[in-house]
Amino acid sequence: MQTKKIINNGDDAVDEMLDGILLAHRDHLRRGDHKRAIIATNGPRDGKVGLMIGGGSGHEPTFLGFVGKGLADAAAIGNVFASPPPDPALSCAQAINGGAGVLFMYGNYAGDVMNFDMAAEMAAMEDIEVRTVLTTDDIASAPRDEAEKRRGVAGNFFSFKAAGAAADLGMDLDGCERVARHANARTYTMGVALSPCSLPQTRRWNFDIGADEMEIGMGIHGEPGIARGPLGTADEIVDAMMDRILDEMGASAGDRVAVLVNSLGATPLMELYIMNRRVQARLAEAGLETHRTWVGPYCTSLEMAGASVTVHHLDDELTRMLDHPCDCAMFRAG
Amino acid sequence: MQTKKIINNGDDAVDEMLDGILLAHRDHLRRGDHKRAIIATNGPRDGKVGLMIGGGSGHEPTFLGFVGKGLADAAAIGNVFASPPPDPALSCAQAINGGAGVLFMYGNYAGDVMNFDMAAEMAAMEDIEVRTVLTTDDIASAPRDEAEKRRGVAGNFFSFKAAGAAADLGMDLDGCERVARHANARTYTMGVALSPCSLPQTRRWNFDIGADEMEIGMGIHGEPGIARGPLGTADEIVDAMMDRILDEMGASAGDRVAVLVNSLGATPLMELYIMNRRVQARLAEAGLETHRTWVGPYCTSLEMAGASVTVHHLDDELTRMLDHPCDCAMFRAG
Repeated sequence: MQTKKIINNGDDAVDEMLDGILLAHRDHLRRGDHKRAIIATNGPRDGKVGLMIGGGSGHEPTFLGFVGKGLADAAAIGNVFASPPPDPALSCAQAINGGAGVLFMYGNYAGDVMNFDMAAEMAAMEDIEVRTVLTTDDIASAPRDEAEKRRGVAGNFFSFKAAGAAADLGMDLDGCERVARHANARTYTMGVALSPCSLPQTRRWNFDIGADEMEIGMGIHGEPGIARGPLGTADEIVDAMMDRILDEMGASAGDRVAVLVNSLGATPLMELYIMNRRVQARLAEAGLETHRTWVGPYCTSLEMAGASVTVHHLDDELTRMLDHPCDCAMFRAG
Repeated sequence: MQTKKIINNGDDAVDEMLDGILLAHRDHLRRGDHKRAIIATNGPRDGKVGLMIGGGSGHEPTFLGFVGKGLADAAAIGNVFASPPPDPALSCAQAINGGAGVLFMYGNYAGDVMNFDMAAEMAAMEDIEVRTVLTTDDIASAPRDEAEKRRGVAGNFFSFKAAGAAADLGMDLDGCERVARHANARTYTMGVALSPCSLPQTRRWNFDIGADEMEIGMGIHGEPGIARGPLGTADEIVDAMMDRILDEMGASAGDRVAVLVNSLGATPLMELYIMNRRVQARLAEAGLETHRTWVGPYCTSLEMAGASVTVHHLDDELTRMLDHPCDCAMFRAG
């Protein structure tokens, strides 16, 4: 039996989705020269560093939700859970190059690195200077002393936001790269999965999980987590996440943070807000001040049930970047 | 086997959710005198008509997502899929009464009507003038010649938005009531359900549906629809909805509309945007111009899989109301 989806031919799902996005958000988004290169209508400008993000589809509103003035200038879009080839990324770089260079930011996955690096080389041949910052916020995906091997997940939100603000504020390519690395290094995410998801082409579940089980630390493409066990209460699940996040973060009482409680797809707002209640209690207990909180589906895995918690450890610069206004089509980000 | 939810005790789910909402959105929302009365921090003011909305929980971001400056001034919150009693509604009315009267708006459900009418009588005894406008946008829920029996669903978005703008623009109670009725009369929704949902207290599915079936016209609490059959393609599903919506609407070529493609919970953005592609094609084919489009989870049924399409038939006044700025915590609405 196929999984239930409201789609037409599975092979057309990504392109039909992009058609639907562009029809819905004409004020914010336009197609570049490549059909999988989506550009902010108001963002790229002469003398400004261009910010390009991207990766596989299936994580909506990541990546296109982050394209808009004050945030990313373009996104290169791949098939479901698959890196885009170099061409759309090159097309993005050309469209958003204002002569000050282009910053590529995306999650640390081998396929993305290979393809985007190739695009960066092709851009260099056209005298577009490209720098790359990989997001690595998923603290369950590798130990702390190998943090550079970690994957990028929902914490993209804060790293993209900081880099987009830096570019919008007129920082040069060195400055934008520095801010992006700094934001990523201070962003910590842990996820929990309750169900699998299914790709439009196969309509089969991508992994098995027991009817009373959860998996802590699972990645946004179903990559194995760090512990599978019986489904806990919301408070138990959040405590397991926050223990690790607080330990990694090493913050001092009085420090400020921003929070994202993210749905992986099917988990509704009611559960996310119940989680947020405990997240905020744990932060308050640690003497940390929450500057701002976002709750909702920001980085999803199609119809997967589950959630993630991201804590972004602010300092004065990152607070300024977070508070800088931005204008995206799909949600309030600034 | 219980359904999977990230909650603590099911009986505490609504209050814990409200705690989490208030912690996340302190800039936008505060508690009134009653713990289930949630008030906009910036909205109520002297001489302005107050707009109160409300109903059962489980439809988030409906209703609290619509509370903010330029939209609703307060929401009275019930248990999951259950009307709030009169007390929180009265508490809302007291908090948002600026001396110009209070408009109650909510979906047309018997329990809500009974409880909110009682609150309106209690408010009248305190010399707060209350008017009531019921939303009835679910065109599948009763025939056209009994439109007053229809239920209110995702089209609330446009009716609340119009009334909120009217109040923010300083219209009097007569004017706000007129705009609210006018907006509701020009709002048409059809839904399709692919899966049931489960209440936090029972954690059992609220209806059965075959693994290859869908139900067109199902209500947001699992009320029976108008046709159950094999799951169609996205285009077939949208065509079934749009045939009825266009027939009901009776618009002329050149008219303008606004669109909401809404997830009932588990259905991801990819599927909604694929639906939007077809919605826009059908509108264009009918010679209608889409002024603005929203896509995402706006009126949900917990973790139900499914979606709805709402078309709001604009005229000059409704366009002005829709474009009037508003500031809500959970999404871009204005």
